[in-house]
Formats: sequence, C-alpha cells, structure tokens
Amino acid sequence: MCASAPHAARAGVAPAGAAPPFRLGLLGHGTVGGAFEVLLGERADEIERFNGQRPVITGVLTRSRGEFEEILAGADLVVELMGGLEPARGYLLRAMRAGKDVVSANKQLLSQHGEELFETAREHGVRLRFEAAVAGAVPVVRVLEESLSATPIERIHGIVNGTTNFILTEMSAGCSYADALARAQRSGYAEADPSDDVSGRDAAAKMAILARLAFGSPVHLDDVVYEGIENLHGDDLQFARELGLGLKLIGTAERRDGGVSVRVHPVFLYGGHPLASVVGPFNAVTVESEAITEITMSGPGAGGRQTASAVLGDVVSVMTGGARPPAPPLALPLIEDVESAFYLHLDVADHPGVLAAVTQALGEQEVSIKSVVQRGLGENARLVMVTHPVRESRMRAAVQRVAAFDFVRSAPRTIRVIEEEFI
Amino acid sequence: MCASAPHAARAGVAPAGAAPPFRLGLLGHGTVGGAFEVLLGERADEIERFNGQRPVITGVLTRSRGEFEEILAGADLVVELMGGLEPARGYLLRAMRAGKDVVSANKQLLSQHGEELFETAREHGVRLRFEAAVAGAVPVVRVLEESLSATPIERIHGIVNGTTNFILTEMSAGCSYADALARAQRSGYAEADPSDDVSGRDAAAKMAILARLAFGSPVHLDDVVYEGIENLHGDDLQFARELGLGLKLIGTAERRDGGVSVRVHPVFLYGGHPLASVVGPFNAVTVESEAITEITMSGPGAGGRQTASAVLGDVVSVMTGGARPPAPPLALPLIEDVESAFYLHLDVADHPGVLAAVTQALGEQEVSIKSVVQRGLGENARLVMVTHPVRESRMRAAVQRVAAFDFVRSAPRTIRVIEEEFI
Repeated sequence: MCASAPHAARAGVAPAGAAPPFRLGLLGHGTVGGAFEVLLGERADEIERFNGQRPVITGVLTRSRGEFEEILAGADLVVELMGGLEPARGYLLRAMRAGKDVVSANKQLLSQHGEELFETAREHGVRLRFEAAVAGAVPVVRVLEESLSATPIERIHGIVNGTTNFILTEMSAGCSYADALARAQRSGYAEADPSDDVSGRDAAAKMAILARLAFGSPVHLDDVVYEGIENLHGDDLQFARELGLGLKLIGTAERRDGGVSVRVHPVFLYGGHPLASVVGPFNAVTVESEAITEITMSGPGAGGRQTASAVLGDVVSVMTGGARPPAPPLALPLIEDVESAFYLHLDVADHPGVLAAVTQALGEQEVSIKSVVQRGLGENARLVMVTHPVRESRMRAAVQRVAAFDFVRSAPRTIRVIEEEFI
Repeated sequence: MCASAPHAARAGVAPAGAAPPFRLGLLGHGTVGGAFEVLLGERADEIERFNGQRPVITGVLTRSRGEFEEILAGADLVVELMGGLEPARGYLLRAMRAGKDVVSANKQLLSQHGEELFETAREHGVRLRFEAAVAGAVPVVRVLEESLSATPIERIHGIVNGTTNFILTEMSAGCSYADALARAQRSGYAEADPSDDVSGRDAAAKMAILARLAFGSPVHLDDVVYEGIENLHGDDLQFARELGLGLKLIGTAERRDGGVSVRVHPVFLYGGHPLASVVGPFNAVTVESEAITEITMSGPGAGGRQTASAVLGDVVSVMTGGARPPAPPLALPLIEDVESAFYLHLDVADHPGVLAAVTQALGEQEVSIKSVVQRGLGENARLVMVTHPVRESRMRAAVQRVAAFDFVRSAPRTIRVIEEEFI
C-alpha cells in the first residue's frame, strides 16, 4: 500500500538514534498528488536538515487502492488532494476527530463546509492548513493568517483564477472568447469542462475562503455574488483597448457599511492599476489595511508543481509547529448591495429622443452619467456610457427599465469599472 | 519604568483564571518603537482573542530611562528597535543567553553580526525574528523562511530601498538628482544624511539578510558588491525615458556557478518588467524557484506604522510558537565576477576612427556590442552602446582601456541592463 517515492521512502529506515520520520497519509494521487510526491522526494533531505525530522509518505489512498483507516493509523498528518466534496469531507473530519493535523488543497470543500471543518479542528486542537486552496504558490493564506492579529484588514482584491486571466489576456490581444478558451485548453490552463472557471464560481470559492481569513466571519460560497466572463463581447474588449483600459475578473472582499461584501465580477481597470499588468495564467492579490497601506502578492495561480509546493509548505509549517487551530468565527452581516460605477452598452435604433429617454430612466434610479459615446447610425447605433458609482440594486432596476424600451435592439450589457483615474 | 499604553496595560490585571499576559521588553522608543506601542494598544484585544494571551509592554529602555537587566527579567520576549550595532548587539545576545526569544528590526546588526546572533539563538534554543529588517510591511522574510524547506530558491531580486526608488521615480519625471533628494527629504522618505540609502549600502544590508535566508549561506554586508545612485546623470535617465526603459536600484542574490552572488546596482529595465512599474517609496521583491517559477511581493518599504506592523507580526509569530531557531549555516562560495549586459556612455570627440578604436578595445576583452547610437557632432559627440552579457571583470578592463583614449572627454559611465526584451 505504501507508494512513497524512492527518496522519501529511504528515510523510513532511519539510523538508530535519529528522530522518527514524520509520517504523511496521502489522500488522492492525481496531478497534484503525484507532483507532491515527486517534490517531497526532492526536498526531504533539506527539510530533515532544517527540522530534524524527515517527512515520508506512509500510505496513499486512491479510488483503486489503499484503506483509509489503515492510512490514518499510520500517519502523523493527513494530506487531502482528492478534490470534491465527498468523500474528502468525511475523511478530513475523521482524521481531525482522531487527533491528526490535516492539510488540504480543496477550495470547493473549504468554501462550502469551512465552518464545520474549522469547528472540528478547534474542538480537537488540531491544525487545518490550506494554502494551496487559494492562489497556488502565492502564499496569501499564510500572510493573512500571520498578519491577521497584527493589522486589521480592510479589503482584499485580486485576480484569483488563472484560467480566466489567461483567456482575458488572449481576448485583449484580439482573440474571440471561443478561440481564447480553446487556446487555454490546449495549453493546459483550462479543463475540458471549463464552467467552474469561466462562470466565476472557482474565484468565488477562493474569495469566500479569503474573506473568512481576513475578517473572521463565516462566508459560504453561496454568499458570494459572482459573475463570469462567458458573456463578455469582443466589443467590450475593443472599447477597453481604445481607452487604454484592462478588463479583468476581479474578486473583492471588503468591510463595508458595518458588514462584509464578497463578490466576483469582470471589471474595467485603468491602465496604471497594479492588477492591469497581471497577464496570462497569473494570480495577484492585494491586501489593504490602514496600518500597512497595501501589500500585493503575485505569482502562478495553478500548475501541479506550484500547488504541490504550497502543500509542502503547509506540511513543513505543521512539522515546525507553526500553525494553530483556527479561531472561532465572528459574525458580520453580509452586505450585498454595494456601490459600483458601471459601463453600460446599448444597441439602439437611432431615433430622436433615444438619449433623453435613456438618461431619464437612469436618472429615476439616481444613476448619474459620467461620460457617453454614441456610435453608428440608424438601426445600428450603439450607446456606450460610464456611470458614477451607484447602488447596484438601483443600476439593475434602471437597466431593466431601459431594456424594455422598444428602441433597444438587444439585451443591455453592464461591466463594473474601477473609477480611480478612469478616463 | 513601565511605559505601556493604556490599552496594552489593561490586561496586566487579568481576571482570575485567565492566561497570564505575554510580556514584552521594548528596547528603543523612537519612531518605530512609538508606533509599535500605539499599534499594540490597538490590536491587543484581537491578538488575545486569537491566541488566548494578551501581549503587554512590561518595560521600555531608552537612553534616559529603564534598566536592561530589570526589563529582561520581567519579559517573555525582547523587542529591539534601537538600531545601530552597539549596544543593540550586546542586549540581544544577553537576552538570548537568558533564554528569551527576541524580535529585531535592525538590518545593520543582522547583516554584520548575523551569524553570531543566529548561532546564539540556535545554541539557546530561542527564536530570533526580524521581518521588519528587510522590506517593511512586505512579508518577504516570513515567506522565505516558510518556503525555504519546500522549494529550492534560485534567485531573489528586487527593490529593497524605498528612498532611492522615490528619488529615481522623481528623476524619471525630469527632476535633477539634487531636487529629487530634497523632495524625498521634505516628504520624510530620506534622512537628513541620506548616504546609507543613496550609496546602496542600506539595500546591500537587506540583500545580505535575504541571501542568508534564501541560501542558508552566511553573507556579510562586506561580501555584497554595491553601487548607489549618487552618480547617475540626467542624461542616462533621459536615454532611459526615450527608449521606454525604467532605471531602478536593484538588489540581486542568486545561485551562480556553484556559489552565491549578492549585489546591488542601478539597472535599466525594459518597460514591461514587473519591477519597472514599482514607483515611489515602494519595495518589491521577486523570489524565483524552479518549482514555483516566481512570486512577487510588493508594498510600502518603510514608515513607522508599517515597520511596527511587521514587528508586531513577529511578536504574534513567537506567541503562537510559529518560529523556530535558525538552522545552522551552509557555506557556499561567493561569486563576485558575474556576467551582465551593460549600457556604456562615452563623451567623445567625433574624429574618424573613434568608433573603430572603441569597438576594438571592447572586442579585446570579448565585450560584444548589441546596439550603438551616436549623437551630436565634433567635440560634443556622445557614443551610447548596449553590450551583450559579459563578465564584469572584462567589462571593467575594457572600460579602463577606453577611458585612456585621448578622444574620450570625460569618465565613461556604465549601467547594467536586464537583457530580456531589451530594445
């Protein structure tokens, strides 16, 4: 049953008097699990030199081999790299109830059953580490956990899905959405079924986890308002390019109006924005706090070896006693109706009075217009406007009203805009 | 003697049954020490909630008040924010020999007496934390320490001095060096005596500390080859601007030819380089490793509150048992003669044969030219060239030879160039 790599296994026969090995039970042996085993083999000597104990894999569970109870009994730490809700959830709960520390890279599980897992870890005084669940090799979980006590975090925002960032980068260079997606799939950046990524759901799960870490308040994946990139038009990218704007899928978690708002949307950024220059399959997360102003961390968001490196960092962290059981949750209200500035795109028939009707409908919902461009003539005119910040519920109501006008030829499209230095 | 802030002190009278406070002895009460006391007062409740123990300052040592032995006896942890070599070194050694964990923000001390401090910490099994000594609020020390076992680091490079980055940003906008420096001093980004910053020595100290962390090999400040920004000309910045290049003071620590090279120089970067967009008093550090490709962290490099936040992070890290005594050093050879590409600026009298003589002198040292621009005429001509990468000793020899030509009107100037995508 033991499937440890030659290097890692070697330490199993420690010379007399040496510290016993640190035993890892590995659940799952796919891309990340395999990469983890290879990396552990490469790094075991160095880890032993620094920590006095050598990490070895003493059991591996896959669909076709291994027996969970036996692996659990022979492990000091359980590493869960299976993904999915079940049976991963059951195994992690059983491991923690047996007093074992656990490491997981499972964002679905943490964003949907996080409180149950945290509560179990707290109750049994064990560590639950999950750096690899959020931003691959970018150590944002570690930094948040360690900074949490030292500085009150106001806002986290960033690019936490490499697949969509790759697709948007390609689209900015002129590719269609379909071509950019196909390219991402060929390059291994997107799955055969990309829906979790392109719908924004993957980013939403990560933002739920980050929000819990930053604010201590439970946030479930279902609490996150999210929107993906599937419905973006080449038109919008074209408009962005002309104005020197970047279009990114941005996750935000922030304190707002006494509560917490967590959301994921495509957003226009002005060219000088730090996140505008993050291209390809990279992730970047900015943490804002009054005491530190802001810290940005960026790096590859995915990849088996990067994720394995984050998992191994967690293992070492548990070995050195660095992690602690999670703190009990605070309960902050979820604020869903925040203010945003919007880009609004309308296909209209160009009759007299069209602009007046649209602006009046917007004005009734207190949507105020910052700039407007009208292009084309007759039946094919387009009205593109950017609004001042407005409550999103009001914008939705206004757009619904506008959509009902008979001179509007297709569904209006809105994209949020980061206002700072917006042209 | 106790100078704790009201909030922090409050916990001194803990209710019966509560955990005893975590007692801090504070050495030094200048800008950072004062900011640390304020921040601790603000965050003590939250830290107690997360860790079960409340941190309180039980003694403060300044030039005019406090007695070291008494402060030491009453502290669980000693926080050194005095700066300078002595008496800080003596106090830290005494504290560690007394079995106390220590936190320090003292880059001079760590880069010049690091091995003695690490050795003492190891010998007495105590923690020595120094996040604030390197990049202010940017948690590069923490990330390196925790990633160290999990991934072999190949290279660290970045902007680790906010003062010079502020000055270079101003100069890029057209200011002279003197004006930019005066502006930095007015804004509080530069000291009255800026020599440690502008000479590159401050950045060299930080790179020595980072190199020790990344490679485990002792690096003393004296081992770091460094060059500052005092001798940069407006001409060079002008040239950079025209070509869309950024000019930054870059620190590099890397594995090279079986050893370690650590150096600080002004460097031209192409416009798309991640460090080119780091402006003002910010720091940014990129860590490269085969397993993770690269991670970049950026944020404010200095400021009392930012530094205090890093110090408090270290305090919390010790409270939670997260840090470990430093590992014993490896010994890697220092490689001083690395390869670099160069920009070379010559004021020449424009006679026939000048270019031929220069290129021949360079060629004799195997310096090969990538591009060359000649401007002006007659006695005021300038020859600006960019070389392919070449051993720095060969470039120095070549420049010495060129400087001796009678048609060269003033001392040749060289600036290193990051080649990737260089125009």
